[in-house]
Amino acid sequence: MQIQIDQNRLSAELEHLSSFSDAPAPAVTRILWTPSDLSARAYLKTLSDAEGFEWREDALGNTFIRLEGSDATLSAVATGSHIDAIPHSGRFDGTVGVLGGLEALRAIQNSGIKLQRSLELILFTAEEPTRFGVGCLGSRAMSGTLSVTQLEALVDGSGVSLNDARGTAGYTGSLENIALPEEFYHAFVELHIEQGPILEAEGQHIGLVTAIAAPASLILKLTGEGGHAGAMLMPVRRDALTAAAEIVLEVERAALETGSEDSVATVGRILNHPNNINAVPSSVELGLDLRDIDALRRDKMVARVLEAAHAVCVRRRVALEVQWLNQDPPAPSSERVLSAARAACSELGISPREMVSRAYHDSLFMARLCPVAMIFIPCLKGYSHRPDEFSSSEDIARGVEVLARALVNLAC
Amino acid sequence: MQIQIDQNRLSAELEHLSSFSDAPAPAVTRILWTPSDLSARAYLKTLSDAEGFEWREDALGNTFIRLEGSDATLSAVATGSHIDAIPHSGRFDGTVGVLGGLEALRAIQNSGIKLQRSLELILFTAEEPTRFGVGCLGSRAMSGTLSVTQLEALVDGSGVSLNDARGTAGYTGSLENIALPEEFYHAFVELHIEQGPILEAEGQHIGLVTAIAAPASLILKLTGEGGHAGAMLMPVRRDALTAAAEIVLEVERAALETGSEDSVATVGRILNHPNNINAVPSSVELGLDLRDIDALRRDKMVARVLEAAHAVCVRRRVALEVQWLNQDPPAPSSERVLSAARAACSELGISPREMVSRAYHDSLFMARLCPVAMIFIPCLKGYSHRPDEFSSSEDIARGVEVLARALVNLAC
Repeated sequence: MQIQIDQNRLSAELEHLSSFSDAPAPAVTRILWTPSDLSARAYLKTLSDAEGFEWREDALGNTFIRLEGSDATLSAVATGSHIDAIPHSGRFDGTVGVLGGLEALRAIQNSGIKLQRSLELILFTAEEPTRFGVGCLGSRAMSGTLSVTQLEALVDGSGVSLNDARGTAGYTGSLENIALPEEFYHAFVELHIEQGPILEAEGQHIGLVTAIAAPASLILKLTGEGGHAGAMLMPVRRDALTAAAEIVLEVERAALETGSEDSVATVGRILNHPNNINAVPSSVELGLDLRDIDALRRDKMVARVLEAAHAVCVRRRVALEVQWLNQDPPAPSSERVLSAARAACSELGISPREMVSRAYHDSLFMARLCPVAMIFIPCLKGYSHRPDEFSSSEDIARGVEVLARALVNLAC
Repeated sequence: MQIQIDQNRLSAELEHLSSFSDAPAPAVTRILWTPSDLSARAYLKTLSDAEGFEWREDALGNTFIRLEGSDATLSAVATGSHIDAIPHSGRFDGTVGVLGGLEALRAIQNSGIKLQRSLELILFTAEEPTRFGVGCLGSRAMSGTLSVTQLEALVDGSGVSLNDARGTAGYTGSLENIALPEEFYHAFVELHIEQGPILEAEGQHIGLVTAIAAPASLILKLTGEGGHAGAMLMPVRRDALTAAAEIVLEVERAALETGSEDSVATVGRILNHPNNINAVPSSVELGLDLRDIDALRRDKMVARVLEAAHAVCVRRRVALEVQWLNQDPPAPSSERVLSAARAACSELGISPREMVSRAYHDSLFMARLCPVAMIFIPCLKGYSHRPDEFSSSEDIARGVEVLARALVNLAC
């Protein structure tokens, strides 16, 4: 089997895609349905049109680019990832799986290999939670994890509803048609940068993901009492920020004290009100993200944090409101899909490193729809979600080659 | 001596002034040289013109409204306060001293009392530090506490220099002419709401301020390392927000452990970057405000906080940068000016409560120029810098009556 990856073209396309951004290079900011996001989507469709692939979009802007197989009665094999980027992040997270997936389809088409099953490249809408507070918006909806009612209730930080926002972006179809039936896809494989340091540190080129760690994310809203920083005496204060500070440290402690390095817990977001240097903070909102490959251990960590937060707030006479964003179970990969990827590695003389994904991905939700696996490539020092995120052209091309062969193995 | 205060007119004017705001009522947001601030200034000048008072402005927009006395060779007696309001604050802080001061001048003019010295009502520019990070901008410059070079170096949060901002607002004169010579004023008296609970709790109507507590304010900039909240393991983290959380609690502890209720310390402002729920915080900026009526005790408190902050940052491998905003000495009131105010109270049958001001005011800087004192009126539960800040029309009118008589006592 001869499959030729055009490494230079792919690098140039990744470079061009990074120019659709609301942050100065090398940082990338590309938030759902902003002009930068819509321009990046248009660019992908232009590249697809140039190859003669058919594409379609659903009412959330999930985009499906299709290479037809010979047997239209068989379910397709899919790959894909996302192109949205949180503020001030990098250019490889997600994009490698989208433009790399397109390069895989092109290379397969050019190879002359005859596939029974069709291939589909999926651009998932909003893997990042930036705009509507929910990660993997597109794949959650596609897998029926978010109902139409839940979708319709989503509102962004500026008070714009999901329905209005998608309408403005040109996606006006019914939300009823987004969820796909089970067995719609034969399999799903996602190519992604590792976002961790293991492959680089061990000198490995390819990781195969055997399970995706389970994320829990929630918002804590603390309401105390504001006042003048000079006139309000310490004993009467109900300072929302000092309460929040204790909780930030409890979140860290919860992860450190499980005794497992697979436990991570982060307060990544804090909004303080009124946020004046000479005013006692009256309310604070904290965004928490807790993960573990062991769902039980993660849930214990969350319970510990909530218990501590309640105790802090009672002691400080601050009201606490807990809002759950998600609490998803971890997803194991499919042995069948892993085998196809292992065979691809073996064809190329690569011995892959099997590993767990601590970051979560659209694959987590695609796993509810069909068998999945993921292919990881190394990235510099494990950096991700920051401007100096980096994977080499060689590593990206190698990942695409493994992806292409895995897709062929699954579709033949 | 007959001095008639028009309580209803003054209430209506305070009500109207509160409509110049960038926040929905009852909240007030009025930031230096925004359209709301400029409209409020224009309103004051219109009221002054209606009485035939002369007014002038300096190159920072400090505004001086003058009632002429009989002897032009004598220095004037001044009163005044500010009309700017921090975001989401109330309608009485500062404004009572400005519109109340105008009402005092009107009442004195209408009374027919002949004054030897002229009276001046000063509207001070930017008592609040909101825009340029420095409190009492106008009175600091007027008293020579801020040099021209320091003024020219000021830049707001959007990168606009003080010089550009004042030019846009129409204040184009030379900054060299703002500092006033010593003895330019014979005395200064400021009417203000207490911003604390003492007068209300004790059922007192008038407070006379014997000293103003000394504020220190500074910004701590913490720089750690960002990364993906799922992929970055706990042991390698250099999380700027967990370091900041420890410092927030150290600031509180420093005030609690002096053992004096006169010590207050606040982190009122926090900016977290990149502030995404799924990203480890890479940098945090904290705004600290520490006060005490005892300057030595306050400085010990600041030193303790900085020592603790350095230790936290070393342990967490986070870089720390300290930026001082101000560290002013406390100001005692003048016995001569206090006597004039005590006499005014006595004429009205009021026994004033002598007290310390824990909030700072333009009087703190006017004290470097001439003898000062302050008159406080009660406010609801001591609330200030919040939308439900409130003083009754009766209490305000009573404060204006004491102010007017004190001004007459000083000017005759």
